[in-house]
Amino acid sequence: MQVTVAVDCMGGDYGPPVTVPAVLSFLSNDPEVSVVLVGLSELIQVQLNTLRPAPALLQRLRIAHASQVVAMDEAPASALRGKKDSSIRVAVNLLKNREADAFVSAGNTGALMAISRYVLKTLPGIDRPAIATVLPALNGHVYVLDLGANVDCTAEHLLQFAVMGSAMVSRVENKAQPTVGLLNIGEEDIKGNEVVKKTAHLLRESKLNFYGNVEGNDIFKGTTDIVVCDGFVGNVALKSAEGLALLIRTMLREEFNRNVLTRIVGLLAMPVMNALKRRIDHREFNGATLLGLKGVVLKSHGSADEYAFNCALKRAVEEVRTGMLEHITTCLNEWLPPEVKTEENEVSI
Amino acid sequence: MQVTVAVDCMGGDYGPPVTVPAVLSFLSNDPEVSVVLVGLSELIQVQLNTLRPAPALLQRLRIAHASQVVAMDEAPASALRGKKDSSIRVAVNLLKNREADAFVSAGNTGALMAISRYVLKTLPGIDRPAIATVLPALNGHVYVLDLGANVDCTAEHLLQFAVMGSAMVSRVENKAQPTVGLLNIGEEDIKGNEVVKKTAHLLRESKLNFYGNVEGNDIFKGTTDIVVCDGFVGNVALKSAEGLALLIRTMLREEFNRNVLTRIVGLLAMPVMNALKRRIDHREFNGATLLGLKGVVLKSHGSADEYAFNCALKRAVEEVRTGMLEHITTCLNEWLPPEVKTEENEVSI
Repeated sequence: MQVTVAVDCMGGDYGPPVTVPAVLSFLSNDPEVSVVLVGLSELIQVQLNTLRPAPALLQRLRIAHASQVVAMDEAPASALRGKKDSSIRVAVNLLKNREADAFVSAGNTGALMAISRYVLKTLPGIDRPAIATVLPALNGHVYVLDLGANVDCTAEHLLQFAVMGSAMVSRVENKAQPTVGLLNIGEEDIKGNEVVKKTAHLLRESKLNFYGNVEGNDIFKGTTDIVVCDGFVGNVALKSAEGLALLIRTMLREEFNRNVLTRIVGLLAMPVMNALKRRIDHREFNGATLLGLKGVVLKSHGSADEYAFNCALKRAVEEVRTGMLEHITTCLNEWLPPEVKTEENEVSI
Repeated sequence: MQVTVAVDCMGGDYGPPVTVPAVLSFLSNDPEVSVVLVGLSELIQVQLNTLRPAPALLQRLRIAHASQVVAMDEAPASALRGKKDSSIRVAVNLLKNREADAFVSAGNTGALMAISRYVLKTLPGIDRPAIATVLPALNGHVYVLDLGANVDCTAEHLLQFAVMGSAMVSRVENKAQPTVGLLNIGEEDIKGNEVVKKTAHLLRESKLNFYGNVEGNDIFKGTTDIVVCDGFVGNVALKSAEGLALLIRTMLREEFNRNVLTRIVGLLAMPVMNALKRRIDHREFNGATLLGLKGVVLKSHGSADEYAFNCALKRAVEEVRTGMLEHITTCLNEWLPPEVKTEENEVSI
């Protein structure tokens, strides 16, 4: 299936020097994709001149010039109001006008969400889009949402996230009845705050395959296919785990560098360490989906390198090819009880 | 300084077979401590008969019989109301009557908190006690609170936690002006929910050494000496990190067991792995403090082994010897603005 991806070349910590080569390797690996490179055309052209892609690749590539760039620390409202010709805005417009099937950006998350929401609008039944990502787990992997788009959520929002996550996983992972866990501080029903308790009630009443409450350690155990939480908690959980991974990596390096003997052992252990690294490589899992929009929008990590950005592009194409968006729309319609459905809102920022 | 510790021998996954030997090794390592073993005296006596401590140790040991045991999954309210002769209740009474200077239990956290709060009451200015623990970090270690006692917190509660944590660290770690970080989903002031924003404001106005917002990864980086958050978020952050540690450990074991060659490398790398393990060994960091009570109460992990339980006992003694409780009381009095101070409440459960 032919898929066109709009790529924000300017986003992320590196911009075109990373995004453009990633796009070229992506094009050469999948003959049925085309890409619209969005951003300052001169900078993009410089990269293309250097990399000299084969004419066959160039045929599936075009540049859409955008004169403005949203800074990584810019306020979303200022990007939305003041930068109508930013690479994010131009790319989202391509998605809206169906000139692209998906959009990937490593740029400012808040601006990406605000602009996408303003231009594309949310799916029927959805108040607020959530950020969903896939993480490594003991028995495969796990999808977690929300990861930071919504700092205050009602039980109804969390139910909406659960429906979207479930529909997403059933398509992307081809699982008929994925299990949904509700992130809490204990398994028992009496645990947690009022929002979580009410959400558990809504989930039990729903048609979803609700497993029950799960705890922080269940995320990486892979106890359920999907873990639902508000954006504050999800963000802290993910970043705490990242922090611990850094701690372990740093200390391991220090221990292997302690003396000549440990250095030799370190060299011998390198293949094992690399095998481990591949299995939990965050680059492999790069590409968080902005779920709940009328369009496939993915956020790459700002610090993504060429390989990681390429992974996000592949994920975007997969979401288009599996018909994820249509399936989410159907599920929201069938699974959300009428009192939880909300009218599509205009974004006020 | 002579210190007497009341020990709940019945708590935790193992009870007397772990708690009693841990107490004996604790007594033999510190000649200035005495212990009151609290629980079913027959079961405690069986352990003592088996272990046969030297007469010099026995002199610093006595048993306080408690006819009831709080189950690990029992509702706190039922333990508080229905088990007036539980090992937790008897031990807390010893603390209240000044027959002990500190109390350590590996039992049911909710029951431990409810009973301690009911019997001991909270310190002046404190609405709700918090659970504080120390974790390994890149540059030493970090104190985090709350870890699960309070699922819904106001900004005033979080300020109270910050004052208590700061006072604790300044004594236990002998740091004059420990830095306080507020756990959030971004460093910028505009990030986070309303409670966090208001807390940041209160912290900036306070006499504390407020660093600003920190993110999940800052915990294990050790960006600040103390990280303050509500109990829901703290619990999820800690357990997510535990989950990731388990994932890494499991995958590393799998990779080292892949074939004969990797197994040999695994044997060679064992000393390095053990050195790493020692540095982040959760047993070393066992013993979370119930901060805000009129008494030194520590919660050991339920699954603590002899070594880990011994670490919790040592921590309890350290908190008594450094005069932590008196210092917290002083700091609450001096540092909490009048509008945040609340009258000591009776616990209603």
